[in-house]
Amino acid sequence: MSDRLTIALDAMGGDAAPKVVVSGANISRRRHPQLDFLMFGRESEVGPLLGRMKRLEAVTTLVHTDDAVGADDKPSIALRGGRNSSMRLAINAVHEGKAAGVVSAGNTGALMAMAKFVLKTMPGVDRPAIAAFFPTLHGESLMLDLGANLVCNSRNLIDFTVMGNAFARSVLGVLQPTYGLLNVGSEERKGHESLHEAAAILRTAELPGRFVGFLEGDDIAKGTVDVVVTDGFTGNIALKTAEGTATLVNEYMRHTFKSSIMAGLGYLLARPSLRKLRKRLDPRHYNGAIFLGLNGVAVKSHGGTDAFGFANAIDVAVDMNVHGIIEKTQADFAALTQRSTDARAVAG
Amino acid sequence: MSDRLTIALDAMGGDAAPKVVVSGANISRRRHPQLDFLMFGRESEVGPLLGRMKRLEAVTTLVHTDDAVGADDKPSIALRGGRNSSMRLAINAVHEGKAAGVVSAGNTGALMAMAKFVLKTMPGVDRPAIAAFFPTLHGESLMLDLGANLVCNSRNLIDFTVMGNAFARSVLGVLQPTYGLLNVGSEERKGHESLHEAAAILRTAELPGRFVGFLEGDDIAKGTVDVVVTDGFTGNIALKTAEGTATLVNEYMRHTFKSSIMAGLGYLLARPSLRKLRKRLDPRHYNGAIFLGLNGVAVKSHGGTDAFGFANAIDVAVDMNVHGIIEKTQADFAALTQRSTDARAVAG
Repeated sequence: MSDRLTIALDAMGGDAAPKVVVSGANISRRRHPQLDFLMFGRESEVGPLLGRMKRLEAVTTLVHTDDAVGADDKPSIALRGGRNSSMRLAINAVHEGKAAGVVSAGNTGALMAMAKFVLKTMPGVDRPAIAAFFPTLHGESLMLDLGANLVCNSRNLIDFTVMGNAFARSVLGVLQPTYGLLNVGSEERKGHESLHEAAAILRTAELPGRFVGFLEGDDIAKGTVDVVVTDGFTGNIALKTAEGTATLVNEYMRHTFKSSIMAGLGYLLARPSLRKLRKRLDPRHYNGAIFLGLNGVAVKSHGGTDAFGFANAIDVAVDMNVHGIIEKTQADFAALTQRSTDARAVAG
Repeated sequence: MSDRLTIALDAMGGDAAPKVVVSGANISRRRHPQLDFLMFGRESEVGPLLGRMKRLEAVTTLVHTDDAVGADDKPSIALRGGRNSSMRLAINAVHEGKAAGVVSAGNTGALMAMAKFVLKTMPGVDRPAIAAFFPTLHGESLMLDLGANLVCNSRNLIDFTVMGNAFARSVLGVLQPTYGLLNVGSEERKGHESLHEAAAILRTAELPGRFVGFLEGDDIAKGTVDVVVTDGFTGNIALKTAEGTATLVNEYMRHTFKSSIMAGLGYLLARPSLRKLRKRLDPRHYNGAIFLGLNGVAVKSHGGTDAFGFANAIDVAVDMNVHGIIEKTQADFAALTQRSTDARAVAG
């Protein structure tokens, strides 16, 4: 059947692998009846789990391997020594056209190193980036880089902007996306030199949509733009700070409703609505970080997520395929390369 | 009366100056009957406001000046051209011993530049830092730097740690504070080189309390440590990201209680408790960023705060005096300087 879609899964990646991976795939199977899975991992561990989920087993091909990348392995070590790891074989499946995307909850650095090595970066892209959605006052926005590149020059930031822009237009369906660079102030003279250089180029780069200039940290949740661009160090810390703050407020709220009998009664009355709120803030809902700039779909799930969260990461890989993100980003980069090459020549 | 305390106020600093400054001082006066104020600003604007608050007027000396630092003035321009500005005169008052501290809601960069120029950094401190409290699961913690130094080397990070440590012990009253460096992972090999150098030194620096190593963004709100140390670029973005996220969750909550009649009834029942929650998350409650490492108390209020928020910034200046933070930090630095000098020699 031509409309079926195969997703490769690193069954051994994540804190509670392979259980969370297999259960997550089972949730995803119910959501997307067109999915087939190619799972890589230890037969002795994955097999019995699959045996208990017959419908999943029916759409899954399990490929045995004893090797798995450790959560704390250095990316360079994983790259050299992990040729037979479940992570590497799952990535290979995408490269070989056997799967339309790979999802792993394993070691982020190793996954990025292997994905980059196997799938290669797109023509015109210097370094791939990690992107993710986050909730805002106006819906959802995309932020990148979230940790692939800890130190970024202006060229990297411009590449991330082009990739995020293409993603917003194809996957988010925003035809004229707004985008900006995360900084410590909106004034032109503030922040690192690389930001000033990138901003100067983006002001004249004629990407689709509108460059709003510099953003501050609170613009992320405000939803000031569709695409927030930053270096991987700052992006990683901003993302985790936001997650931590949301958890804190949630915890405060829990205490609030336990603080008096009246508050407890109030909670009971408001419960259906509060459940919707909790769902909206649930970090599992936003699970699935996207590797952009590679010739293939690769999604990183949070290592500590549960089956529901892992299923959401699979959803991201499915969405990227449904919207043809790779082809569209490649085409966008080809079309934009001339302009950005010109611009880069100006930046030196 | 020897137990009275004089605070110098930049009456012209902030989005709604001088109204917010004068009204904030009036709130603060009620909280702290021992306070006198030395206000600097335009007599024609400040005078009439004071005239309407007789009790405040009785404890306030208004010093007229026509000059004020603009919100967008470059720090270097403000430093050279703002010798008669309300901000500069308020800082001078601290240097001259006429006031025990200065509070301004004006231009942060100009305030830091002027405070550094007039009050000078403490012996042993290379660069002062901006610190602030933030709410956590366990109470409150301190984070620095929040924007004074956008690029930091390991020496700066170590200085910030020593200052934050002293602050936690004196003002927060935590005798054995825990402290750590904000990074993108807790593993030793992750992040910038300056962080690795600083961590290596802090592991053997024998400061009071305990160095926990690297922290991630979500550790801020978790309250993993008493003192979170980071460079000013990252700290500024983390702080504003947290503020933005808290606002977002608050907004979601407001919508939730309006989403159905039952939710609305629940809100009415839980209202007294929810008000406490709102107060706990109110950014005005945490207003007042502390300049650490200077020979004098200087506090920066958020430019857009209201009178209640400005009064909280005055509270911070009062607390720093009550706990003798300057003397204690100076003494701590003197005692610690030998060890950190040794350590720095190792770092090169």
